[in-house]
Amino acid sequence: MTKTDLARRVYNHAWKLDPIIRSLLDTDFYKLLMQQMIWQQYQDVNVEFSLINRTKTVRLADVIDEGELREQLDHARTLRFSKKEMIWLAGNTFYGRKQIFSPDFLQWLTDFRLPEYQLEKRDGQYELTFSGPWAETTMWEIPALAIINELRSRAALKGFGRFELDVLYARAKARMWTKVEALKQYPALRISDFGTRRRHSFLWQRWCVEALKEGIGAGFSGTSNVLLAMDTDLEALGTNAHELPMVAAALAETDAALTYAPYKVLEDWRQLYGGNLLIVLPDAFGTASFLRNAPDWVADWTGFRPDSAPPIEGGEKIIEWWEKKGRDPRSKLLVFSDGLDVETIIKTYRHFERRVRMSFGWGTNLTNDFADCAPRDTPGLLPISVVCKVSHANGRPAVKLSDNPRKATGEPAEVERYKRFFGTEDFAELELKV
Amino acid sequence: MTKTDLARRVYNHAWKLDPIIRSLLDTDFYKLLMQQMIWQQYQDVNVEFSLINRTKTVRLADVIDEGELREQLDHARTLRFSKKEMIWLAGNTFYGRKQIFSPDFLQWLTDFRLPEYQLEKRDGQYELTFSGPWAETTMWEIPALAIINELRSRAALKGFGRFELDVLYARAKARMWTKVEALKQYPALRISDFGTRRRHSFLWQRWCVEALKEGIGAGFSGTSNVLLAMDTDLEALGTNAHELPMVAAALAETDAALTYAPYKVLEDWRQLYGGNLLIVLPDAFGTASFLRNAPDWVADWTGFRPDSAPPIEGGEKIIEWWEKKGRDPRSKLLVFSDGLDVETIIKTYRHFERRVRMSFGWGTNLTNDFADCAPRDTPGLLPISVVCKVSHANGRPAVKLSDNPRKATGEPAEVERYKRFFGTEDFAELELKV
Repeated sequence: MTKTDLARRVYNHAWKLDPIIRSLLDTDFYKLLMQQMIWQQYQDVNVEFSLINRTKTVRLADVIDEGELREQLDHARTLRFSKKEMIWLAGNTFYGRKQIFSPDFLQWLTDFRLPEYQLEKRDGQYELTFSGPWAETTMWEIPALAIINELRSRAALKGFGRFELDVLYARAKARMWTKVEALKQYPALRISDFGTRRRHSFLWQRWCVEALKEGIGAGFSGTSNVLLAMDTDLEALGTNAHELPMVAAALAETDAALTYAPYKVLEDWRQLYGGNLLIVLPDAFGTASFLRNAPDWVADWTGFRPDSAPPIEGGEKIIEWWEKKGRDPRSKLLVFSDGLDVETIIKTYRHFERRVRMSFGWGTNLTNDFADCAPRDTPGLLPISVVCKVSHANGRPAVKLSDNPRKATGEPAEVERYKRFFGTEDFAELELKV
Repeated sequence: MTKTDLARRVYNHAWKLDPIIRSLLDTDFYKLLMQQMIWQQYQDVNVEFSLINRTKTVRLADVIDEGELREQLDHARTLRFSKKEMIWLAGNTFYGRKQIFSPDFLQWLTDFRLPEYQLEKRDGQYELTFSGPWAETTMWEIPALAIINELRSRAALKGFGRFELDVLYARAKARMWTKVEALKQYPALRISDFGTRRRHSFLWQRWCVEALKEGIGAGFSGTSNVLLAMDTDLEALGTNAHELPMVAAALAETDAALTYAPYKVLEDWRQLYGGNLLIVLPDAFGTASFLRNAPDWVADWTGFRPDSAPPIEGGEKIIEWWEKKGRDPRSKLLVFSDGLDVETIIKTYRHFERRVRMSFGWGTNLTNDFADCAPRDTPGLLPISVVCKVSHANGRPAVKLSDNPRKATGEPAEVERYKRFFGTEDFAELELKV
């Protein structure tokens, strides 16, 4: 018996492209939920999404070959939802609810493809933008980020020998299992994978998801990655993102409309979704102003996802607000999702234990933690802080402030206008690890 | 392109046996050197080798299926040296010397096969013995041990899922690489693989050898495993073992012959080999008596392999003896090979640095260090202290004392007689890790 599968070997050597994105479901679940809402309620809005590399010291255009980047983006544009995927979206239960996607939206999805992209190089960085109907451009966020991050991993590993790669992944696996064993000590802890956008690679994300499934069992709530959820029979998780209040605010014609923008999109959301999907993302223009101006019904929502304040301080402020509004925090949910690692997860969990329900959406440190795993110094394997954000809506500039000024996006003059408008109470500059 | 190689899959599921020993070269090099000497000088000696499991708490007959054990032993008996192997043995340079094996010995090897074995169960242990011409039975030592140890690993891993196995080997690889990085700090350190007999498995030994080759480069002198030396272009290393003085002592008819037995086999050896192959193994009946009675010419040999005394104390005694004999230890070699791990290697190396040449033959802790690597508690993966020793020569009992009474083998009355005869000066009871 020869040891080599000849056909496979020739195929492996002859292929032109190892696609990073192989399915339109290889995205975060919240994109599909938001897409349905946008498609139904914001058909006439055109937006622009832009890639933003906050880690300026990493010159992406020097690291990633432009030809390879275009090939990957072009390949992603060839994808359609397959029959199996459409049947699964229609037939699966999400967050305990059947038929979460309407038949007309699913009908529209059948022909969906990713829209065009614009790519230029400037000062060693890529200017990658996506312009067009919001319901289309929104779907580029995750594949664009996954492509950038995986091309960067591949570039870092070029020239590695078979043995170095073997050691690299053995160490990464050993480290991941050490994390699993640490988390296992807290059986009531609920972890989910939010690591698609910043992953080292698709296959590595899949391994990490399998490790959590195998290792913490019921403690693993599911994954934001729709493809992995389908393929591994996990819950697809996620709700909504900053782009909703950002676009609503950009489109606001009056001060009153701007003040109400963050709540307007919650009203939109409420028309489509309920239960555990009613999660408030409060920090688009600062959590303090959000809570100060929030209508009373916001306190009826299931939970909050603090996404830029330090988890314990941020959580305490939301609990205090619930209590002030006469709600029992023990029936409420806090979804932590910002820069988590095992230490912060456990610390936060122990801090809030029995005072509030919690869930932890674990991202970059789950799917892209390769520091010191390579047998040689390889800075290209350290994750970078790269995002893909709405930059314009119907030609008007869009802004995100967040509770950490380093996470702010938008034109500087607009950022200043928003700061004056919403205030900067409780803002705290924190280092962006990722 | 289907992902499955159908032929391979069916083959994998249909095979009857996954052989542990696939080549007669999958043995320690010293066996071939000794075999040539025995074949030339001790043709009329019949000996018996016996498996001895010193780790009595592990009941091997309960752990390893007798049918599987017989299948593996029977399979090893079907092996012959292949043409390629014979050509390599004849054409390769060993220890800097060409044609180390004589044409008539190689001619005899062409038809060599492992002789019969006797296998019985008693008190939860296997009584596995090999009787017949010494030049034949000697070759069972390494394959018998490798089979026992790998069948034990396989038994321990039965019922492990794919993912658990993945984590197990990832952790073992990560640990191995940590060792490599520690050893790398000492560029003049010389390490060799002596781990065939106690290995977790053949494939794992091969990985460890590749790791050392990749990681410490010139610091890796080679391997005692002849097959791995051939396949990976490494030096085949090793000289001689306790069976030589043990048989010579067992055959001794007079007290004078018994006293001289350890030096008689060195004289035999000197007729065939020179240079770095002139390594004295001094502890068969205690190092102190060996040094006390040694003829002056023993101090002309290249080096010593202390194999049961603590490395630093044992090394110091030999250096002291060389100095007493007027030899410069800086031109001499100490080969350490007893129960080494990274810590003892580095400690011993630093202790003797610049005072003597050193080489470290790393065994069990190199090729079978899986403690705490499995995701579940798996005591079956901890190595055991199992050896295969000459028990009789021409019907007379054979004895080994060594400097550590726990490593003594032989009938108790004979062991006591040898102790009285050679003395027990400097004997120290040390725990047998492996």
